[in-house]
Amino acid sequence: MLKIGIVGGTGYTGSELLRLLCQHPQIKITAITSRSESGTRIDAMFPNLRGALDLKFVTPDQAHLNQCDLVFFATPNGTAMHQVPQLLASGVKIIDLAADFRLQDPEQWLQWYGIQHQCPELLTEAVYGLPELNREAIRNARLVANPGCYPTAVILGFLPLIEANIVDCKLLIADAKSGVSGAGRKANVATLMGEAGESFKAYGIPGHRHWPEIHQILQQVAIAGTKSESKAIFSKKTEHQLDFTFVPHLVPMVRGIEATLYTRLTDNTQDLQVLFESRYAQEPFVDVLPAGSHPETRSVRGVNTCRIAVHRPEYSSMVVISSVIDNLVKGAAGQAVQNMNLMLGLEEGMGLAGIALQP
Amino acid sequence: MLKIGIVGGTGYTGSELLRLLCQHPQIKITAITSRSESGTRIDAMFPNLRGALDLKFVTPDQAHLNQCDLVFFATPNGTAMHQVPQLLASGVKIIDLAADFRLQDPEQWLQWYGIQHQCPELLTEAVYGLPELNREAIRNARLVANPGCYPTAVILGFLPLIEANIVDCKLLIADAKSGVSGAGRKANVATLMGEAGESFKAYGIPGHRHWPEIHQILQQVAIAGTKSESKAIFSKKTEHQLDFTFVPHLVPMVRGIEATLYTRLTDNTQDLQVLFESRYAQEPFVDVLPAGSHPETRSVRGVNTCRIAVHRPEYSSMVVISSVIDNLVKGAAGQAVQNMNLMLGLEEGMGLAGIALQP
Amino acid sequence: MLKIGIVGGTGYTGSELLRLLCQHPQIKITAITSRSESGTRIDAMFPNLRGALDLKFVTPDQAHLNQCDLVFFATPNGTAMHQVPQLLASGVKIIDLAADFRLQDPEQWLQWYGIQHQCPELLTEAVYGLPELNREAIRNARLVANPGCYPTAVILGFLPLIEANIVDCKLLIADAKSGVSGAGRKANVATLMGEAGESFKAYGIPGHRHWPEIHQILQQVAIAGTKSESKAIFSKKTEHQLDFTFVPHLVPMVRGIEATLYTRLTDNTQDLQVLFESRYAQEPFVDVLPAGSHPETRSVRGVNTCRIAVHRPEYSSMVVISSVIDNLVKGAAGQAVQNMNLMLGLEEGMGLAGIALQP
Amino acid sequence: MLKIGIVGGTGYTGSELLRLLCQHPQIKITAITSRSESGTRIDAMFPNLRGALDLKFVTPDQAHLNQCDLVFFATPNGTAMHQVPQLLASGVKIIDLAADFRLQDPEQWLQWYGIQHQCPELLTEAVYGLPELNREAIRNARLVANPGCYPTAVILGFLPLIEANIVDCKLLIADAKSGVSGAGRKANVATLMGEAGESFKAYGIPGHRHWPEIHQILQQVAIAGTKSESKAIFSKKTEHQLDFTFVPHLVPMVRGIEATLYTRLTDNTQDLQVLFESRYAQEPFVDVLPAGSHPETRSVRGVNTCRIAVHRPEYSSMVVISSVIDNLVKGAAGQAVQNMNLMLGLEEGMGLAGIALQP
Repeated sequence: MLKIGIVGGTGYTGSELLRLLCQHPQIKITAITSRSESGTRIDAMFPNLRGALDLKFVTPDQAHLNQCDLVFFATPNGTAMHQVPQLLASGVKIIDLAADFRLQDPEQWLQWYGIQHQCPELLTEAVYGLPELNREAIRNARLVANPGCYPTAVILGFLPLIEANIVDCKLLIADAKSGVSGAGRKANVATLMGEAGESFKAYGIPGHRHWPEIHQILQQVAIAGTKSESKAIFSKKTEHQLDFTFVPHLVPMVRGIEATLYTRLTDNTQDLQVLFESRYAQEPFVDVLPAGSHPETRSVRGVNTCRIAVHRPEYSSMVVISSVIDNLVKGAAGQAVQNMNLMLGLEEGMGLAGIALQP
Repeated sequence: MLKIGIVGGTGYTGSELLRLLCQHPQIKITAITSRSESGTRIDAMFPNLRGALDLKFVTPDQAHLNQCDLVFFATPNGTAMHQVPQLLASGVKIIDLAADFRLQDPEQWLQWYGIQHQCPELLTEAVYGLPELNREAIRNARLVANPGCYPTAVILGFLPLIEANIVDCKLLIADAKSGVSGAGRKANVATLMGEAGESFKAYGIPGHRHWPEIHQILQQVAIAGTKSESKAIFSKKTEHQLDFTFVPHLVPMVRGIEATLYTRLTDNTQDLQVLFESRYAQEPFVDVLPAGSHPETRSVRGVNTCRIAVHRPEYSSMVVISSVIDNLVKGAAGQAVQNMNLMLGLEEGMGLAGIALQP
Repeated sequence: MLKIGIVGGTGYTGSELLRLLCQHPQIKITAITSRSESGTRIDAMFPNLRGALDLKFVTPDQAHLNQCDLVFFATPNGTAMHQVPQLLASGVKIIDLAADFRLQDPEQWLQWYGIQHQCPELLTEAVYGLPELNREAIRNARLVANPGCYPTAVILGFLPLIEANIVDCKLLIADAKSGVSGAGRKANVATLMGEAGESFKAYGIPGHRHWPEIHQILQQVAIAGTKSESKAIFSKKTEHQLDFTFVPHLVPMVRGIEATLYTRLTDNTQDLQVLFESRYAQEPFVDVLPAGSHPETRSVRGVNTCRIAVHRPEYSSMVVISSVIDNLVKGAAGQAVQNMNLMLGLEEGMGLAGIALQP
Repeated sequence: MLKIGIVGGTGYTGSELLRLLCQHPQIKITAITSRSESGTRIDAMFPNLRGALDLKFVTPDQAHLNQCDLVFFATPNGTAMHQVPQLLASGVKIIDLAADFRLQDPEQWLQWYGIQHQCPELLTEAVYGLPELNREAIRNARLVANPGCYPTAVILGFLPLIEANIVDCKLLIADAKSGVSGAGRKANVATLMGEAGESFKAYGIPGHRHWPEIHQILQQVAIAGTKSESKAIFSKKTEHQLDFTFVPHLVPMVRGIEATLYTRLTDNTQDLQVLFESRYAQEPFVDVLPAGSHPETRSVRGVNTCRIAVHRPEYSSMVVISSVIDNLVKGAAGQAVQNMNLMLGLEEGMGLAGIALQP
């Protein structure tokens, strides 16, 4: 059994990680740290784990994380970067579910997260943990930056089109909607049920932290997809060659993300249904729905699947894509387990079987 | 007291109309028809009306609608058109809350609603009942087509920009979200709480009936806003001069619509906040929020107000507008009462005071 | 116009009080205090009040509360008791929406609220503000303890039976359910939508603060309802003559309380439907539903009405009552306005018209 | 692989059964019948099953159910009784998830379900499929009546007390609350999200079909628990020796049942926590929570577990029990799979592993 440690297990991504890892046949959780809850039984905080996990939270000192094969960080942003260098030096592999290693540019990290990065030298080593894009690199990585929830839904929806270089990258819009668990399990007035229940709103229109993350990846894909002689135009100086608009919204539900994506074709000759189905034919966790479908978030509740439908409405010039994930699974803990399997040489889907809970 | 009749009072728009009219000081409801429920006390079906309304549903024969000053139709699409001509001939004014008189082109009506129109000659007479656009025409109208819920939120959001002729009408996108009451109060598997609860989805991407309605109005506004010599380009033959994309979504809540709108400026010289505030300064039921705001649907729950925020995110070329209404009030019954007040020479906001129920 | 002050206006009972008072024709809000938010526009925190209230939060020093005719306390428990004596001395009338003056016994207050009472001498002067029970005393009161939300629903349901002295007071059970707004608008993990959404639970079974409040009132009613020679048995020494069980539950919705009450008849001769209808015939805010009904919380959403149904199922010996209120209106702010009207000599229902928002 | 057929797979219990059976290692689904949907791919109706089940609905004629080892009926009440005798005669084992075989008395069935029973001779043969009560009988049964959802939660909560013969069976109250999926997946106004969302109500107070079912079982347990000489008192003539009150409520959520149970002890000498823990120590699917706990429905979302807490509040004479299940799993399909495992000689928990989806 491989030894797994978890730093920070009291939030939703942490508890979801525990749910999944408890059902994984090849790993053993050796420690879950929480300074504030050390000594508390984990199943006292998360009764769904009763009978599945016989552990208490421990302090970082008690955790002996350097003896683990792999450590997950399910901590607030800006935490992992303090501990990752030392653990890597001990030979431990790392998956960070927070944002510390998602942006390659430390200045951009400072700008969007408001903290000076503590190990900028690792930013380019860290692999962005989207297996559908970076599978081989993940297999060989010491350090994986697990993608954000919105980015996973948005990137998987745009990927086939941008890779095929058939859309106008100057017109990419993602109108994304998330259940409240995306905001985490910390005391906060704005996500009280009295505030978020029976209501709907956009937020973060002036700028959301997932914008630079999505922008960075889509731009990399766009560069890779262009002919070599054109790549120069995507140099750092012309960062905004891609024109990408992102508006997140808060949905009065617990789990689920839907992203509706809009762009325009520069090449009308391809059958988009075929394009999407081909692109994802070998992907175990992306399901392209039949033409004419509209995916529902509940169809992926609790599972690691992203379901996508692509439409070309007759009455408009736009391509419209609808992409759904469970923000806590494919958008966080499930994708982290998928990455773990790749990094540890296990079967990619191990521990991730299961059928969505519908209704 | 003015005499008011209601045809079809068993749905959500009908019951909301009753809620508002019961609180209106200058009118008296003389009859509410329902073939299936005739004889049933109205407050037996809608207990919130207990103590406020002492009436039973009656058959159309018993209703003596031709003695009313004004009749509302809160019926399924395709019903009002059978009865309107005769009532108009009796001198009764009409507000249709369904779609029968919203589209001016009978062929388009047939195409989107699948029914041959029964009084196409009235389509051009009917006034589209958006007071912010057609106030004077409504005052003088015999027949008002009350706007759809999505169209109200979307048109009010785009209106200042298109009137000012400063956006690219070839790039208009409305990503709209509605609570389930928008689907009506009829037995239907898709809107069972077991189906629509704790889930989110897009629907109608290939085409929704509110698309032609919004398209028609925005195009009229665009034509009116262009210089006279250019109007020719918007002739019927070039109907699709406007490129408008509309995607509705179902939110797991009862009431409320939010529409996030995307377009591009063709003229960067105007302060959009000032533009919106000026345009709606005299409008009693449109509230432009301070710069940087994000309206929530609950902030208009139960009231006839549309709250709007306009944004120009730095990281993208798009203008983004978020517009919220209560789909049953400003999106249906409240707007109908506002139109009634105009048609009957009453103060426009009579019976529509009240503060949104938040939380 | 009568001058009204509000201490503590940032919670749900405070904001609901503002919603109601803004629509009251005979009063003027002169100050709303909040130490933490002083200087903030009230409608910046509660956008539903935009256009209805042009005030900012002020510090207590700035509020000049001693010049008010009446002051509401919408503060956390244990706050009002520090300020009430001085205000009363200034001739200001007081309604406390918190629990400071609900229990007459200071030892019991200490036991259940964990704080030494600061003005125990006022506990017996304070009138329990349930108009259906204490209307005349409220009219003459300087200080009214506004009832808790659960107590309002439970007491109004049991009242006709206990007053009539026809039930076994040794067997009173209230199984009560509340929406999350009852827990207030403070940052708290347990009422995050991620915790309380799509789930249901009992809480407080070992003891909830509303138990002594309900017990105290029901016992007073029971004593008053017994023949004089029997009253001695309800002396303080035999406090637990009444055997009352209370279990609250948390419902995944924002507003509303339903209480299902169970007891047994000691006298089978009365028609309970007639008893309830007679008891509440003159009450403007209690609505006894027709026999066989089941009230829904939405039928009182936003209004000051309590709707009640009484049942005697054939298959059991129990009487079962179902009572619903809006916890923020009849269970808090609405009842407070009703009390204010009584205390200030205004028409009892002034400012409390309105029809519940259903759906 | 054992061959399993399902009659009626278009409702929530049917689809949940499919979700569970698809993950069962020892069975193969050979046919799922639906007259109305024959020819439709099952995963077109239930997209969560995409990739897990490659079958279409078939007509009963095409299903060859008599070649199955076991057939589940997930049909409306009154359907199974027409087909069961013939299938039993073919040697097929049957689990009926509807109510056809739950009541042993055909007159009572007629009274509560309004239909003459078609095979009353099988009513006494049918075993009530609550493994915690009837495990050995289920192992040997040809025909199992799968318990109702409310009965499962209520009976498991009362069972230890009644078996131990330490409570007053003349005072048993179950105040039960269910999510809307309990009402099934049929078009129905009352369970539209517009009707059931953001509201709470009691229903069925005058009598609900689960009352006779619970009453019958609790009475059998009470008789079995009394000394032999006393059993005579529970003869059929004195059916109402047990005094049991049952009030169901509708919760605005999709899944989950909570039952709060009230009774009084006749024997105060036992430690109830120990009693419950002992009674269920060997039960794989009943979890007695630590003293002082309050189970949440989400802690069993998607799993076959019943979690129970038992309380003796100091301020009252009542014992209070709170019991939660997922109405579609332990309350329907999960319990059916548990019964199937017993009937087919498989490990009782096979295919029922999994951890509840919290949040």
